Amino acid sequence: MRTAFYVSDGTAITAEVFGHALLTLFPAQFEHITIPFVETADMAQQVKQRINDRYKTTGVKPLIFQTFVDDNLRHIINSSNGICYDFLNTFVEPIQRELGIAPVPKTHRTHSMHEKTYDFRIDAVNYALANDDGANMKNFDQADIILVGVSRSGKTPTSLYLALQYGIKAANYPFVEEDMDALRLPAELMRNKDKLFGLSITAERLSQIRQQRRPDSRYASIRQCAVELNEVEALYRQEQIPFLNSTHLSIEEISAKIIAKTGLKRHKY
Amino acid sequence: MRTAFYVSDGTAITAEVFGHALLTLFPAQFEHITIPFVETADMAQQVKQRINDRYKTTGVKPLIFQTFVDDNLRHIINSSNGICYDFLNTFVEPIQRELGIAPVPKTHRTHSMHEKTYDFRIDAVNYALANDDGANMKNFDQADIILVGVSRSGKTPTSLYLALQYGIKAANYPFVEEDMDALRLPAELMRNKDKLFGLSITAERLSQIRQQRRPDSRYASIRQCAVELNEVEALYRQEQIPFLNSTHLSIEEISAKIIAKTGLKRHKY
Repeated sequence: MRTAFYVSDGTAITAEVFGHALLTLFPAQFEHITIPFVETADMAQQVKQRINDRYKTTGVKPLIFQTFVDDNLRHIINSSNGICYDFLNTFVEPIQRELGIAPVPKTHRTHSMHEKTYDFRIDAVNYALANDDGANMKNFDQADIILVGVSRSGKTPTSLYLALQYGIKAANYPFVEEDMDALRLPAELMRNKDKLFGLSITAERLSQIRQQRRPDSRYASIRQCAVELNEVEALYRQEQIPFLNSTHLSIEEISAKIIAKTGLKRHKY
Repeated sequence: MRTAFYVSDGTAITAEVFGHALLTLFPAQFEHITIPFVETADMAQQVKQRINDRYKTTGVKPLIFQTFVDDNLRHIINSSNGICYDFLNTFVEPIQRELGIAPVPKTHRTHSMHEKTYDFRIDAVNYALANDDGANMKNFDQADIILVGVSRSGKTPTSLYLALQYGIKAANYPFVEEDMDALRLPAELMRNKDKLFGLSITAERLSQIRQQRRPDSRYASIRQCAVELNEVEALYRQEQIPFLNSTHLSIEEISAKIIAKTGLKRHKY
């Protein structure tokens, strides 16, 4: 199996995103090794040794996805027996030409701390935790968005992702039987109707997820799931609440679609 | 101000990471516009129009960071008045040559749903929520890692990030006064000592954070913060618990450092 190294003087998150986006295009298996915070020439020499050892033991050259800002460190890795792909270096020069200004190469800033954004994100995480699962509905007025849906349709992980990644304050509310009996939104939701976004899911998938939580319960039965989902989608339509079906979507895709559909303001780019 | 577009037939997360890593190297301000899920020729034409309009109104060509897998869609964007940077296309060919296999260009898989990984992540998020802030210490045996530290030192956001990004089950435990008085770990932590990882922070920063929560309290005073941090670092040393100071680190950096130091197994690459 071919080895892919992700190496950087920062978190190596960018190197990973860059490498994975490329490697997922190929029908092959890779062993992945991430080495972040390679900040000195000594450390870079050790990484080079590790790459060379891997070449020796496997007989194939490892692929190296690296995002060093420091030239000296980059050159050390480039002198290894790996095949090095360096997207920063490839694109910096054309962008510099277009902008007409020189880059200021500091250690990575992409995934490091920006105090203002950081506070937004921590506040948003605290908000999501305090307003998970319909807790504290009086705080809904402070929400940027309120995710609604039946139990286990993906509201909580999506709320946390929106908070952590984008500093968006997302509350979430699971519809309860009284809401469904009346086919009516509670007052706190009515008041914030423009912030509502619905999640739906297929009955089969919902049942599967609920089975893990309460095996062989009425709650997890396909019949019960189908009834709840039918009702909730009727409510979305009646109240003109935008919604999406999360069955085949990752948390990242659900979040990106919600932001695209609502035009929510993000606190991090 | 120059406009940067991030455009993709997927979430555009890769396009954003790619573009930001480059643009943060330049001392300039940009207006950022993300357009995900551009899945048809019609939609791509609309994006092209938007790029051209932006050029017309601002007089400078927008920078376009795009990660289309579909050739036809890519060509439409490339024919706009923006300056297009396309890292997938740039690197696919050399990687193909090295691997000796052809890419299988499907719509993006980087940030889409991989069922096995997905379940890991959702389980880990549920675990982190159920075991936040020292709740359910009996579940600590199931943890991959247990973050410890004083109140407000960054344990909760880090636990959630480890869960959401990597499917790592992270519990967290805030030391309480009895632990400190005895300078001793509770039994549930002793039993899982190899999973402990400590967070520390400067007294100034901790006080600042606590001020937001309880202004002008003893809890938020620099003196109280300093006492707690001294004690907790003494405990880390006494019990040989690895720890790091989170003061100037983002959640991403804390998480990457913890994974690098502990060798924790990630369920997502």
